[in-house]
Amino acid sequence: MKALWQPRGVAIVGASATPGSLGQRLLNYLRDHGYAGGIYPVNPRYPEVDGLTCYPSVGAIPGPVDLVLALVGAERVMGALQDCAAKGVAYVVVHASGFGEMGARGAALEQEMTAYARAHGMRIIGPNCIGLVSPTDHLVAGFSPLFSRVRFEPGRLGMVTQSGALGYGIVSLAVERGLRFSRIVNTGNEADLCTAELVEELLNDDVTSTILVYSEGVKRAADWRALGSLSLQRGKPVIVLKSGRSEAGSLAAASHTASLAGDDAVWDAAFRQLGMLRVDDVDDMLDLAAIFQQPRRPAGSGVGVMTTSGGAGILAVDSLSAAGLGVPALGDRTCQEIQAIFPAYGTIANPLDLTGQILSDPTMFRTALRSMVRDPVLDALLVCFCVLQGAEVDRAIDDLLTVLAETDKPILVSRTGGEFLAPGAAVKLQQAGVPVFASPARAVRAIAALVRFTQRGPALGVAPLPAPGPAPVGWPQPGQVLTEREAKSLLAAAGLPVTREVLVTTPAEAAAVAEQMGYPVVLKIDSPDIPHKTEAGGLRLGLGGSTAVQNAFRDVMTSVRTFKPDARLNGCLVQEQVEGSIAEIIVGVSPSPMGPVVTVGLGGIFVEVFKDVSQRLAPLTADDAKAMVAELRGFKLLTGVRGQKPADVEALAEVVARVSRLAVQWPGQWELDLNPVLVMPAGQGCRIADALLILSP
Amino acid sequence: MKALWQPRGVAIVGASATPGSLGQRLLNYLRDHGYAGGIYPVNPRYPEVDGLTCYPSVGAIPGPVDLVLALVGAERVMGALQDCAAKGVAYVVVHASGFGEMGARGAALEQEMTAYARAHGMRIIGPNCIGLVSPTDHLVAGFSPLFSRVRFEPGRLGMVTQSGALGYGIVSLAVERGLRFSRIVNTGNEADLCTAELVEELLNDDVTSTILVYSEGVKRAADWRALGSLSLQRGKPVIVLKSGRSEAGSLAAASHTASLAGDDAVWDAAFRQLGMLRVDDVDDMLDLAAIFQQPRRPAGSGVGVMTTSGGAGILAVDSLSAAGLGVPALGDRTCQEIQAIFPAYGTIANPLDLTGQILSDPTMFRTALRSMVRDPVLDALLVCFCVLQGAEVDRAIDDLLTVLAETDKPILVSRTGGEFLAPGAAVKLQQAGVPVFASPARAVRAIAALVRFTQRGPALGVAPLPAPGPAPVGWPQPGQVLTEREAKSLLAAAGLPVTREVLVTTPAEAAAVAEQMGYPVVLKIDSPDIPHKTEAGGLRLGLGGSTAVQNAFRDVMTSVRTFKPDARLNGCLVQEQVEGSIAEIIVGVSPSPMGPVVTVGLGGIFVEVFKDVSQRLAPLTADDAKAMVAELRGFKLLTGVRGQKPADVEALAEVVARVSRLAVQWPGQWELDLNPVLVMPAGQGCRIADALLILSP
Repeated sequence: MKALWQPRGVAIVGASATPGSLGQRLLNYLRDHGYAGGIYPVNPRYPEVDGLTCYPSVGAIPGPVDLVLALVGAERVMGALQDCAAKGVAYVVVHASGFGEMGARGAALEQEMTAYARAHGMRIIGPNCIGLVSPTDHLVAGFSPLFSRVRFEPGRLGMVTQSGALGYGIVSLAVERGLRFSRIVNTGNEADLCTAELVEELLNDDVTSTILVYSEGVKRAADWRALGSLSLQRGKPVIVLKSGRSEAGSLAAASHTASLAGDDAVWDAAFRQLGMLRVDDVDDMLDLAAIFQQPRRPAGSGVGVMTTSGGAGILAVDSLSAAGLGVPALGDRTCQEIQAIFPAYGTIANPLDLTGQILSDPTMFRTALRSMVRDPVLDALLVCFCVLQGAEVDRAIDDLLTVLAETDKPILVSRTGGEFLAPGAAVKLQQAGVPVFASPARAVRAIAALVRFTQRGPALGVAPLPAPGPAPVGWPQPGQVLTEREAKSLLAAAGLPVTREVLVTTPAEAAAVAEQMGYPVVLKIDSPDIPHKTEAGGLRLGLGGSTAVQNAFRDVMTSVRTFKPDARLNGCLVQEQVEGSIAEIIVGVSPSPMGPVVTVGLGGIFVEVFKDVSQRLAPLTADDAKAMVAELRGFKLLTGVRGQKPADVEALAEVVARVSRLAVQWPGQWELDLNPVLVMPAGQGCRIADALLILSP
Repeated sequence: MKALWQPRGVAIVGASATPGSLGQRLLNYLRDHGYAGGIYPVNPRYPEVDGLTCYPSVGAIPGPVDLVLALVGAERVMGALQDCAAKGVAYVVVHASGFGEMGARGAALEQEMTAYARAHGMRIIGPNCIGLVSPTDHLVAGFSPLFSRVRFEPGRLGMVTQSGALGYGIVSLAVERGLRFSRIVNTGNEADLCTAELVEELLNDDVTSTILVYSEGVKRAADWRALGSLSLQRGKPVIVLKSGRSEAGSLAAASHTASLAGDDAVWDAAFRQLGMLRVDDVDDMLDLAAIFQQPRRPAGSGVGVMTTSGGAGILAVDSLSAAGLGVPALGDRTCQEIQAIFPAYGTIANPLDLTGQILSDPTMFRTALRSMVRDPVLDALLVCFCVLQGAEVDRAIDDLLTVLAETDKPILVSRTGGEFLAPGAAVKLQQAGVPVFASPARAVRAIAALVRFTQRGPALGVAPLPAPGPAPVGWPQPGQVLTEREAKSLLAAAGLPVTREVLVTTPAEAAAVAEQMGYPVVLKIDSPDIPHKTEAGGLRLGLGGSTAVQNAFRDVMTSVRTFKPDARLNGCLVQEQVEGSIAEIIVGVSPSPMGPVVTVGLGGIFVEVFKDVSQRLAPLTADDAKAMVAELRGFKLLTGVRGQKPADVEALAEVVARVSRLAVQWPGQWELDLNPVLVMPAGQGCRIADALLILSP
């Protein structure tokens, strides 16, 4: 996207000389921030604007134009695009609102515009957006009031934001903190260029090392699947603030799995699977940007804490423990070195509390910090300051930067004190490579993310979504619910371990089948109109003999007819009753914007009461499937508690992995519940005791 | 504590003329901040300090002295105290370190000092502390570098902080945000005056309306029990940042209950029970201070959101939904009013997105805000700004304050933008009664706390700890573990429903008892040396006849002898086997610094795997006990799921309440496990099927 970041010429369609107008502001921002390419106002009403020749159309511009900022209203956008196409423009920023966000007519216009641009080799940014900034290239192409107040210094942070006002608000907070950007793009309605494409571009962009994303409704969500492995490959973290947690699911949740797979839970699972760092708030995004902007990565998870306040030290240790990071005891040599310089000092420990003595003995800080960074048990250092001011701040900064230059370990600062006490100190440290946080807890959250990202396994990510295969024999019609027997027959053909069962239509036949199968057996109604058998009285368990089976058959048929007189009844299933299982598990598939999601959970009361489930995008490797099962809170129940045998976790993982392959192989959008999957003792496999499959209309 | 906040005279023992010395700084801070009472330097080495007469001792000062700031080192503190006692001083701040925090000798000195002060009617603040500030009285009595940079304006926030550096760091951040304090005290080691006493003082203090507390190791924790009802009575929130979450429990956790009642979980439960607002970080403390500093309280939980950025509006709604607050649809009249002034506008809804139009049509903001505050479905308003600057900020502030003056609903601002874009705007709003937050999520967390505090029930709080009663018959020796039979006999005498059981010593006796009791029965080893029977093979369930009982008796005795050859064996218990219970519950008691804690949890695998417990300080009312049971995540399991009958929750609550009364009646520090308590179907009560009682050594 070189033509976007470094356009040879930029035209402003709708440029204006009216003070305060958008047309005038766009032009001024572009000039004031030092953009070196050609700047071309376009407006048939003016011969010149602010000393620059003004052209009646883009086509009339003599030099090359790669980027057009179109300030025209929605109704005139098509005309402007035609003008751009004639000139061979590469990128058009459509600032105006009044498109998809304003109802059907706007959406149609958005589609028309996009189709036209694609047909003519142009890409559109927006509509309904503020524009872009490429500090690397001194390009400020947009109209945020921020642009009149800030000088962008080139940095390594890239940002893609769907929201303009909020996005540039976050940028302003970042700049205030001393963070520096490479590229910033506000995508608005994403009629054409979307977040996933821009994130991919920034992952491949040499000047960008960390990517911040603010996203609302994700367009072309499946394109995100490829970004995980790219992020891992490039070693560039993607930090995502995804809002819209509370929006209702887009598909009606007919299956149990789908109701568990709330939209937002799926995003959570997907981002984790892709190795992306999801944050909950603007603060967290900036904290992570601050720590990832510095290039050092800790070799392990041991953190040394040095503090001028015992209280801040305790808060840091609380947070480190909660985050699962280590607070290792200092090595003997470190203790001796520090003891030697502070003979009267109380406890030499981690955290090391220097107290107010840092004020009376200024060399103490540097000496102790140097000693700690050399300690091999520590992988990163957190220095907690509270109220410092004046010359003591300058000295502390010098000392910190001196020691920083001697080590390749990251050093961070938490500074719980007003900016007015040490104006500019935080920005100076941040820009010199020492991230500064407002509290020990926030510093620790950032360190935890840095350690997690640095130690992420190579197995993260998700395979590309393959083209779906043909529908298998017995595949449902759109909107159809398959009966247990139909669904299990599909599953059995796909190699999944379903319980043995036979459809019978008379009491005598039921008894004969049961005799052959061996007691006890289960009897279940078989009807396309009764997806939930229990409530209809369509289920009998533990039938131990011929008479019981015959009576049960009559009872079930009667109950179901009473429950739903017009239900189509195929008869009953005589099914083996599985005895001796260790656990009931639910395994399911449901569609999501990023592709089919596999859900595994502890079944029965656990899933109803504790919602203990694990979710990932399909397809899964065997290792993925094992990891999903192992991350259930109730995993312990499968490993042999209270004298029980351990369950056949391997077999369960194999079921999950196989289901995940079906999830991307069977066509269309569908939901599957295997509930329960009975997991037998280790070595004895699993049995799918019930199944439900629904194809979306 | 009038003599503390408004001392008639303040003496500085160790005053000095040396520039930069603590003695000189203390004096200057006291003078510079405008303290109007007598200021008396004390130091035998100087006739005068900085133009003030310097006295050789406190006793030599002619005027009254209520407060002494003692700058002497630990070894000279006793002498200074004697000097103060002779003068009749009320309060002495001991700044020096080198006491309890430095080992046994320091701790002894601390005790000596405290005993002396109490005997002479003086109160000590510290040692190891920075001092206090009473902006209400222009009193700055301490030595934080902050004091040279800040003018304290009197406000309504009180603060009690154990940590000096961190505490005054938090104060500096608060001041920077426009928050104003009434009183600030750093308590340090709390040799005498402790946090609980000072919080009580501030709850009773007319000029203080909200109390901030930073606490590490809580001294005299039981005194906190009384603060909950006082806070509720006065309507003054207590906002607590309690660190030391990761510290190990102070009592060895021999019982299951005590291991569940980790120290920090108990603090969490106790603060909630006392109606105090526990926060996790400095940011949260300041956010809550900001919202509680303004005096308005919302009548309900409906929040109206107005935003200049769609993105910020979505983040606000996400947070409001997650916090359980309402985002009600606007009333018809509100919609009509807003529609009338913005005819071309898209969607009139909550959140109301004004977009960038607020810039082009400045009256829009005020009109829409006025219309929203008048809507009866809204109880509070959140206005989300992003990048605003210059004149538009001034106008927005004026409009906000105009509308604020017309309503008694709270109005809050979230401003996601750099301070440099609108310098001073946030402070101006905060001081005019509009709290400002850095993000929508943070604003919502604060609103949620405000709503929760405003709507808190009158039933919150905990009764005073009564004097313990005499030990009941059969009470253990210190360090003793009671057997199931002994513990149950105590419980039965206290009116608790234990299972029927008889101690037997031969197989024949066992069979005879079982015949009489009715089958099935349980057989359990009875030994003071086998607290955990299952692992010793000392438990047999479901014995259905005479032979089974006799064989089980022999098996149990053999197993236990093999498991622990030297165990003292009393014989076996023949116990009724309770059938038909709905749930297994664990009920327990464990000691805590605030008094005995009652724990209720779902027993068996639930407590082992999901740690689903609820805890409160004893004693409990019947309503408390019911609420504890109802707040279990798995409460649903007691209400009749999967076709089960509902459990006898009333009877369970009665057991919990009765146990909680024993918790404060039986003497000493002890742990009790009732595990399991079998809860029968509604109307059929509970049975305590096993019990363990341990008295601490």
